[in-house]
Amino acid sequence: MSLSVSASTATVLDKSSPTVVDVDLGNRSYPIYIGSALLDQPLLLQRHVHGKRVLVVTNDTVGPLYLDKVVYALTKDNPNISVEHVILPDGEKFKEMDTLMKVFDKAIESRLDRKCTFVALGGGVIGDMCGYAAASFLRGVNFIQIPTTVMSQVDSSVGGKTGINHRLGKNLIGAFYQPQCVLIDTDTLNTLPDRELASGLAEVIKYGLIRDAEFFKWQEKNMSALMSRDAAALAYAIKRSCENKAEVVSLDEKESGLRATLNLGHTFGHAIENGLGYGEWLHGEAVAAGIAMAVDMSYRLGWIDGSLVYRVDKILKQGNLPTVPPDVMTVEMFKSVMAVDKKVADGLLRLILLKGPLGNCVFTGDYDKRALEGTLHAFCGR
Amino acid sequence: MSLSVSASTATVLDKSSPTVVDVDLGNRSYPIYIGSALLDQPLLLQRHVHGKRVLVVTNDTVGPLYLDKVVYALTKDNPNISVEHVILPDGEKFKEMDTLMKVFDKAIESRLDRKCTFVALGGGVIGDMCGYAAASFLRGVNFIQIPTTVMSQVDSSVGGKTGINHRLGKNLIGAFYQPQCVLIDTDTLNTLPDRELASGLAEVIKYGLIRDAEFFKWQEKNMSALMSRDAAALAYAIKRSCENKAEVVSLDEKESGLRATLNLGHTFGHAIENGLGYGEWLHGEAVAAGIAMAVDMSYRLGWIDGSLVYRVDKILKQGNLPTVPPDVMTVEMFKSVMAVDKKVADGLLRLILLKGPLGNCVFTGDYDKRALEGTLHAFCGR
Repeated sequence: MSLSVSASTATVLDKSSPTVVDVDLGNRSYPIYIGSALLDQPLLLQRHVHGKRVLVVTNDTVGPLYLDKVVYALTKDNPNISVEHVILPDGEKFKEMDTLMKVFDKAIESRLDRKCTFVALGGGVIGDMCGYAAASFLRGVNFIQIPTTVMSQVDSSVGGKTGINHRLGKNLIGAFYQPQCVLIDTDTLNTLPDRELASGLAEVIKYGLIRDAEFFKWQEKNMSALMSRDAAALAYAIKRSCENKAEVVSLDEKESGLRATLNLGHTFGHAIENGLGYGEWLHGEAVAAGIAMAVDMSYRLGWIDGSLVYRVDKILKQGNLPTVPPDVMTVEMFKSVMAVDKKVADGLLRLILLKGPLGNCVFTGDYDKRALEGTLHAFCGR
Repeated sequence: MSLSVSASTATVLDKSSPTVVDVDLGNRSYPIYIGSALLDQPLLLQRHVHGKRVLVVTNDTVGPLYLDKVVYALTKDNPNISVEHVILPDGEKFKEMDTLMKVFDKAIESRLDRKCTFVALGGGVIGDMCGYAAASFLRGVNFIQIPTTVMSQVDSSVGGKTGINHRLGKNLIGAFYQPQCVLIDTDTLNTLPDRELASGLAEVIKYGLIRDAEFFKWQEKNMSALMSRDAAALAYAIKRSCENKAEVVSLDEKESGLRATLNLGHTFGHAIENGLGYGEWLHGEAVAAGIAMAVDMSYRLGWIDGSLVYRVDKILKQGNLPTVPPDVMTVEMFKSVMAVDKKVADGLLRLILLKGPLGNCVFTGDYDKRALEGTLHAFCGR
């Protein structure tokens, strides 16, 4: 494994040519560019801009750090382009309709037309909101993702899931809408807080567990390198995650089955985020506890070996991630939020659970309900 | 022409087999059923319901008249189905985000899942809002259109344009999202106010002008029959309108060109609706004045014969429709709203204008701006 890592790393770090991962979706296919200093290569971005008008959507944390750089990349040697921006408040609790309307307000007041391009500059919340705004503005305009967190670089910016939360549940309002490209400048991680870094690694761990045993083993060896922000290790983790995500999305864009497996731990995690109030725990933190719960339930069902339970617990802890939900969560709170999960079909809650050797999972509603009860009671004080 | 009308009429009025117009969009194709007493044929509706849960979206005018009938049609001999409903306030001014959120609230509180079906029961406002809600709820669920006005039966329910207004302009937020079927029970027109009937005829007249000279000539002969609600005449007008709409939508679903021609008079009309306040004039009334303005401008450009200006004026007046905008509209009000029209591209306002013999039009930004100035000043006191 180490050889292939080195080879990949070399490519990723070569500033002149970014690593490219393609998301294959017919006439809606697009590239993911991964590398250092990509925002210093204006043509990379400009080739995906349609029309002469751009709206950059960012937040009050990322905007001050990277907005000028992005505007420069968009306009360098490109005098015909004009760039507007809207700066939203930072945080999952602002991923809702009132904040989304600020994007529409700005776009309409700026008289942007159908030939404009929206650019999402920020983490998952910005990407989801900007994407949904792009899907809905004038019934659909082009957009580009520039994710600046591990979470968004390894997961949320790829695959076209966009949307906002409802007070009763996460991501309940949105659209499947694919970007023109995803541009991952790994240098933006230099300003990412440690807690955000760890949160993103929860999704990296997920890919290993559901479909990529070799990648999980690599993570077990390299978790300390990732936590200490080793550039080569991070670049490889991002690339391999994007490859996994791109492959799944290509096979099942609209989540009729396979794609749902990317939600390992998310049903439990969404309940935590909703129960605790959006933004109290980061998304990846809630997902980490959710993964621990899904793994526990898989073990209760007799579907996985005890050693895997141990390995998951260990790697999550190495990543400074929680392995149990916060004290405030009750069994009833889990049940109430899980009942409105998007994976409920005809009243039956389907879950992603591990089954078989490392790297295998199932998406199913066919499980012994007592295992779910057992897990909920084991992880909740009440 | 009269022979073919009679034949069509016979089919339309045969209760056992509705007239079917197909909208051909590959794997998103769907039928439009047209006929009398179609809501008394439960299987027609039930075959297009996916899942076991239905949400009927209607308003406080149409709901009291037809909700029970629709619930009966959905549930007759179909004990597994459960039907929720949400009743919105009636009127164009409620076609906005706060009202749309009531649909999401109801869907989520009712714990509807991805396998549910939304049913739009009402006119164009209900169809547009329910369709956009269906496009966005859980990133997309099935929906069915049951239009109950001439306007929605001949135009807005067909073709998948959904959305809401923004305070700065009409239909600026939305999605292209196709229904499973459109069910037009022409009996629902029995309760339609005269003013609403006339409003819908503006769109019928539009089809003749932009692409169907024979249909326009038929209308010139049958306008009094339409205004007096002759069932056979209305059924034919609806069928022929749906055929025109279905053909255009099949050729250009996302409005890259041809489909825009369906907006004859709409750019002027939207400015009137916005300037006057949504709901003051009905959509078709504003479109009628807009058609008169587009025809005037086409004549100023030398693109059509003076006799056509006369014929359009005459048929609009026979339909009790306005041929000039309301006094309150100024040249500046028109220009301000038209600047954010969806048909603006790279700053250039493209318009649908008649050109050549009856039944021909163009969608173009290549016109003498003085003609537009001349029309605006001729139709506005200030």
